[in-house]
Amino acid sequence: MRLIALAPLAYAVSQAGGFGWLAAGTDVADLKKELQKVADQVAQNPVPGSSSDFLPIGVGFINWGVELETALEALREHIPAAVWFFAPRKNEDLVEWTRNIREVSKGKTKIWIQIGTVVDAIEVARSCHPDVLVVQGADAGGHGLAHGAGIVSLLPEVADSLRGMGMGSIPLVAAGGIVEGRGAAACLALGGSGVVMGTRFLASKEANIAKGYQVDVLRTTDGGRSTVRTSVYDTLRGTVWPRQYGGRGIINQSYLDAQNGMIIDENKRLYEEALQKGDHGWGESGRITAYAGCGVGLVKEVKYAKEIIDEVRQDISEVFWKLSHASSKL
Amino acid sequence: MRLIALAPLAYAVSQAGGFGWLAAGTDVADLKKELQKVADQVAQNPVPGSSSDFLPIGVGFINWGVELETALEALREHIPAAVWFFAPRKNEDLVEWTRNIREVSKGKTKIWIQIGTVVDAIEVARSCHPDVLVVQGADAGGHGLAHGAGIVSLLPEVADSLRGMGMGSIPLVAAGGIVEGRGAAACLALGGSGVVMGTRFLASKEANIAKGYQVDVLRTTDGGRSTVRTSVYDTLRGTVWPRQYGGRGIINQSYLDAQNGMIIDENKRLYEEALQKGDHGWGESGRITAYAGCGVGLVKEVKYAKEIIDEVRQDISEVFWKLSHASSKL
Repeated sequence: MRLIALAPLAYAVSQAGGFGWLAAGTDVADLKKELQKVADQVAQNPVPGSSSDFLPIGVGFINWGVELETALEALREHIPAAVWFFAPRKNEDLVEWTRNIREVSKGKTKIWIQIGTVVDAIEVARSCHPDVLVVQGADAGGHGLAHGAGIVSLLPEVADSLRGMGMGSIPLVAAGGIVEGRGAAACLALGGSGVVMGTRFLASKEANIAKGYQVDVLRTTDGGRSTVRTSVYDTLRGTVWPRQYGGRGIINQSYLDAQNGMIIDENKRLYEEALQKGDHGWGESGRITAYAGCGVGLVKEVKYAKEIIDEVRQDISEVFWKLSHASSKL
Repeated sequence: MRLIALAPLAYAVSQAGGFGWLAAGTDVADLKKELQKVADQVAQNPVPGSSSDFLPIGVGFINWGVELETALEALREHIPAAVWFFAPRKNEDLVEWTRNIREVSKGKTKIWIQIGTVVDAIEVARSCHPDVLVVQGADAGGHGLAHGAGIVSLLPEVADSLRGMGMGSIPLVAAGGIVEGRGAAACLALGGSGVVMGTRFLASKEANIAKGYQVDVLRTTDGGRSTVRTSVYDTLRGTVWPRQYGGRGIINQSYLDAQNGMIIDENKRLYEEALQKGDHGWGESGRITAYAGCGVGLVKEVKYAKEIIDEVRQDISEVFWKLSHASSKL
């Protein structure tokens, strides 16, 4: 959601009773400006029930690509309710991030850390004592571990392992493949305290997203078949993620050509050409990367963030109401 | 579960109030004998509430590896309550299988068809009108599509697509990564009518499984990290699955060596050597294939099938009871 979930989307989600995130990612140059925008919106129209001690949104970092000092500088001015760490060069780096942000915010900013394996969950739980662990399953769009489990297996095993080491009180928030009420209800059934959704908000009115990208998201069906986790898109874009990660995106001509053995220089040249085509550069026969998760096939319509959140919430309640009545017959 | 879920496990699961499957797979030579064993057990101790018109179990086929005539010959003698189709050479083959089995059983045998994509679900729903669709997510152990979605995304999209074409009444049963009550509850929340579990029953007392394999299952943690879907194990074992499938197994030395470039002849030689070591041929540094799903890290103890089923059922009820109370606060 880097460059897509900016101030308008983050604020809208929180205003609607969710918890919105500014996806700073690796780009913190504009972070101060974005935080200021949220602060301005909050000043005009506060988020009901939120404290004035901090901004009612979180800031997500892709840690390998950000200097801690630069991030702290932005956060000093506007303290967010939470930060989200993902993909450090090594887990130990997060200890310093955690300590510094807790210091700067005087403990006001909650620390969320995203993991994709049980072993990482245990390691960061021990070393950072995060306020929340985001458990990312393999269906997630964008970047995640190249090799891992879906949420159905991962979340319960993380929960049991943390409980086994006396850290069962850390809330687990599920990510990866969740785009609507059924998936969200499923993740609560797995033991999650909440869910995060990215792909669904690609088709939100408040997303900062190219029309071509959004159209691609809406047209794509059969998410598991139409998307792939790969390093091809990173290579084309010239971003160098640590080796263990891959980015899930909609399969397009760049990916197919790479699979068919096209040399990277030629693929890159065609990619650069496609970038010039604007919205027409996306699509099945296009070449611009459309990161999206396996749930993309369930995203059919662009809606306001508030509509999305209201629907998910309503659907969760319905699922449980139905099932609690059905399960009494088990 | 081929060669593992034989008469004792299939019967025990049905006797415990589940629905047990004989995993014939590609090996139908012994199918008659196994069906006779189930019939003998049923004669001694019938499954409560089951009809005497057919055996209270199902038979699972890996269709690409079985001659329809051979299968029919076995099924004529003992009509099972259901058959399960998976991995035909092409989907159209299932039309003939469906028609013949319905004919031979006079409609008594229900047709379950396993799919892993939305497009396959639509195709077999249209052509075969199955009684049940088994929706297999990417976390499944053993064979499945090499490239696909986890159940959290796949099941809701299949459900919506079938509903959209007026076939929403076909029950969907979830597979892949489900080993206990939380995963089962999650799949019901996703809209499944039921769940199937394989990996969990590798650690059942009634499974026909080598001790070394079972020990491997019990020791393995962090299922997404410790297993991989690959064709390496098939190559070593000399089985030739259609190109679009891969088998998920616990990562062992054979896989690591293949990744590190060992030539296949040498890897095969070492594999054959390991086969001679019996139970010691399995394990992290072993070489015999231990197929298992991403949920393997949640399997900690060998239990009777009845204990497993009772626990799952109890846990599902608890999950929904808790969540229906919590969700009223949403």
